[in-house]
Amino acid sequence: MKRVRPIQIAWKPDKKSSTPVYRQIVQYICDKVANGEWTIGSRLPPQRALAESFGVNRSTISTAIDELTSYGIISGKSGAGTQIVSNTWSLMLPTKPSWKKLISSGYLQENNRRMQQINRLEFAPDIIRLGTGELDPRLFPQKMWTEVLQKMSVEITSLGYAEPLGILTLREAIVEHMKQFGINVSTKNVLVTSGALQALQLISSCMLEEGSTVFTEAPTYLKSLQMFQSAGLNLNGISMDQDGMEYWKIAKQLQKSESSILYTIPTNQNPTGITMSNARRQELMNFCIKNRLPIIEDGAYQELCFDGESALPLKAIDDNGMVMYLGSASKTLAPGLRIGWVIASEPVIQRLGDAKMQMDYGASSLSQLVFAEFLQSGKYKEYLIGLKKILKKRRDNALKTLEKYFQDIATWDVPIGGFYIWLTFNDDVEVDDLFERALDKGILLNTGDIYDFKHNRSLRLSFAYLTCEEFTAAMRTIRNGLY
Amino acid sequence: MKRVRPIQIAWKPDKKSSTPVYRQIVQYICDKVANGEWTIGSRLPPQRALAESFGVNRSTISTAIDELTSYGIISGKSGAGTQIVSNTWSLMLPTKPSWKKLISSGYLQENNRRMQQINRLEFAPDIIRLGTGELDPRLFPQKMWTEVLQKMSVEITSLGYAEPLGILTLREAIVEHMKQFGINVSTKNVLVTSGALQALQLISSCMLEEGSTVFTEAPTYLKSLQMFQSAGLNLNGISMDQDGMEYWKIAKQLQKSESSILYTIPTNQNPTGITMSNARRQELMNFCIKNRLPIIEDGAYQELCFDGESALPLKAIDDNGMVMYLGSASKTLAPGLRIGWVIASEPVIQRLGDAKMQMDYGASSLSQLVFAEFLQSGKYKEYLIGLKKILKKRRDNALKTLEKYFQDIATWDVPIGGFYIWLTFNDDVEVDDLFERALDKGILLNTGDIYDFKHNRSLRLSFAYLTCEEFTAAMRTIRNGLY
Repeated sequence: MKRVRPIQIAWKPDKKSSTPVYRQIVQYICDKVANGEWTIGSRLPPQRALAESFGVNRSTISTAIDELTSYGIISGKSGAGTQIVSNTWSLMLPTKPSWKKLISSGYLQENNRRMQQINRLEFAPDIIRLGTGELDPRLFPQKMWTEVLQKMSVEITSLGYAEPLGILTLREAIVEHMKQFGINVSTKNVLVTSGALQALQLISSCMLEEGSTVFTEAPTYLKSLQMFQSAGLNLNGISMDQDGMEYWKIAKQLQKSESSILYTIPTNQNPTGITMSNARRQELMNFCIKNRLPIIEDGAYQELCFDGESALPLKAIDDNGMVMYLGSASKTLAPGLRIGWVIASEPVIQRLGDAKMQMDYGASSLSQLVFAEFLQSGKYKEYLIGLKKILKKRRDNALKTLEKYFQDIATWDVPIGGFYIWLTFNDDVEVDDLFERALDKGILLNTGDIYDFKHNRSLRLSFAYLTCEEFTAAMRTIRNGLY
Repeated sequence: MKRVRPIQIAWKPDKKSSTPVYRQIVQYICDKVANGEWTIGSRLPPQRALAESFGVNRSTISTAIDELTSYGIISGKSGAGTQIVSNTWSLMLPTKPSWKKLISSGYLQENNRRMQQINRLEFAPDIIRLGTGELDPRLFPQKMWTEVLQKMSVEITSLGYAEPLGILTLREAIVEHMKQFGINVSTKNVLVTSGALQALQLISSCMLEEGSTVFTEAPTYLKSLQMFQSAGLNLNGISMDQDGMEYWKIAKQLQKSESSILYTIPTNQNPTGITMSNARRQELMNFCIKNRLPIIEDGAYQELCFDGESALPLKAIDDNGMVMYLGSASKTLAPGLRIGWVIASEPVIQRLGDAKMQMDYGASSLSQLVFAEFLQSGKYKEYLIGLKKILKKRRDNALKTLEKYFQDIATWDVPIGGFYIWLTFNDDVEVDDLFERALDKGILLNTGDIYDFKHNRSLRLSFAYLTCEEFTAAMRTIRNGLY
């Protein structure tokens, strides 16, 4: 058996340092392991002895030990004491947190914690998800799916590396598909991505300079925007009225010296459900042209307008190539396909495509071919017609439910499509408190704070995940629990 | 109609600057368009007049115009002259090339050009690909595929967002699958990625610090390693003998101050076909433990050993968590599935998984379920047995062909599996020249330079893409063209 040297400690943390004492201890132990002084298999002294050596109290040691354990550097097997089980890769963990640069403001970091809590709870069994960003899986077009996959099962005769911009058949189908929204482009203007999120990733990493500002609606879908933040961009939230983003408020904040872009979800906005009016769209375009402010238009909910005529995307009135449009099959058909697309000018698509090839050699060819078949066969169109009818019915029921139970204590707008109703309570309801009480009843709420740049009293409700009966029952429970 | 101000030029490039004159002109025009002085629709003076204004010759103007056109900033419609059609996104192109930091040495940049040429030519019709890194699509297991997709066509009843580490069923199947290679881990040690390339991307962006050194075999598969370079890492090529990487040569170059990792393809190495001997593997592990040098083991060709017993992966003899193993379905079954996996310690997998969720919310669920079914049903195993028989036959034929036509002018090793034979010519054959001559005959060669850190006289030949007859015929053509 290899002999392991006993661990000697002749060092004390600096209690006057701005680095917390437990962090200093973590770093000290990491360094000792990294430089090989403390070898694998070495046993740490008991916590009591450690506390004495370092001149700190037990709870500080305990915090440091927990952190080192979570890195996989030490392990406390019962009976055997705490041992260095360090592996080299784990040692890299504490030193490179930059990939996860969190939102700079402390307030938003808190939001992030609530968001992680919600993400975890979404996988809890029997939880009722009242605000989730996913379509009801029971609406999956099973029969069409079976037909499409049966076809693919014989039509696909090999699955090689795909073209950099995505399989041509799919790009052709997307070009056709986008025409109904007034977007007329060629296959060279289309890049297939692994979901719209990856499109943001590509744009962040190869189009935007660190330190640039992203103007966005407030509230908005911050989860996607973490991408921008990882790339070192600053977020700046702009308030909305019923016609959409109050773009004129950007003017004051535009600094000529730094580069900026605008990110918007103009149609059935997440989380508010607001659809930007046509007049506002034109004004916004003029403003952006004047100020040379490029636009990322997130069209995730564009195809889900069920009231009246659908609003034309900004891309449809974009004569100057200001707009990069993001489409997605995730909100309409199936997030698990991981299919999204970017529409932009040819050189931009070329560059994004090059970057995509460097990252993952393109999206799954199988997913691409399946979605292409959905589009080309007319199945997707037919499915969407049915889906929008159901969503409309669910929205109407949701509005009726709100009028019945919440009229006296909250306000909301009527969305023309999408998934969401943004409910804002009057002064006497604390949403954080409501979250906990709802959770006790097995109901998961998406509180408004996780979408906003400041505290609010709102909830993002989704009528897309639950049936009419389920939605009404859950909202009744919420109401009854309030007083 | 909007009035467009005529363009006035009262500026001249600085001919003494280290920036080429044409680049100065490109930047000048970009600036003018960006700051709004030259508006969209403005017409540029004719090239002759531009040359005069700038005090440069026509060819310089022509180069600048070409570059601006490729950015989509200007467009020369016939008859209408050259016009500013700038879009804001395109203007970002020239300023953010950092995503594509090329290999620092000029020599390797040249390689990159040849590689791009090869990538383009691979899509040319009727080209004979003698060195391509893809399995013959005619070996696709059509019958199994049909069965699997038929099953999925009824078994999949929705396709929601998948778990962060990948669908549990697939991770379970991978855990089972890896046991045959002596790798015993749990599902928490497995992360499903969109191909092995994405795994490198994740590791680069969230585990490695800028300025770190990546030691790698020379020659190696540089295309994948561009990833490391984009993340600001330095590559350092280490030569090989018949037993694999001559790791002892690293010692001299290890600087205690900077962090380093080792990237290796120990089994059926790409491009040389060399398999590291078991003795060398153990020595390398000891060396890395002693020097605390973490290892990325690329197992892309691990499953394709057809001679004797397969070599055990480094991960199988890794007691200290030194090794991160990368697996892939791309070389064995189908690159278009975009399925790879990482095996590492739990905290490392957790971090990579978090990063992956930020990047694209996980790999296609459909691809994951299809590959899980291949693994679980035993179809993958059965398919691999047949595939290896065919590859062995093709390798034997390739060796016979080489002996017949190339014995007097080249040398090569006998690979125990994988796709490749590394052919090295004697002094009197120039490989660049050979590339052109082969292309004239419709044969695409992968010259050794694109895999190496220095000039060589080698070819990467693949016996996996062509049938025995096709391979022999192509090699005979090459030989006949030589003299």
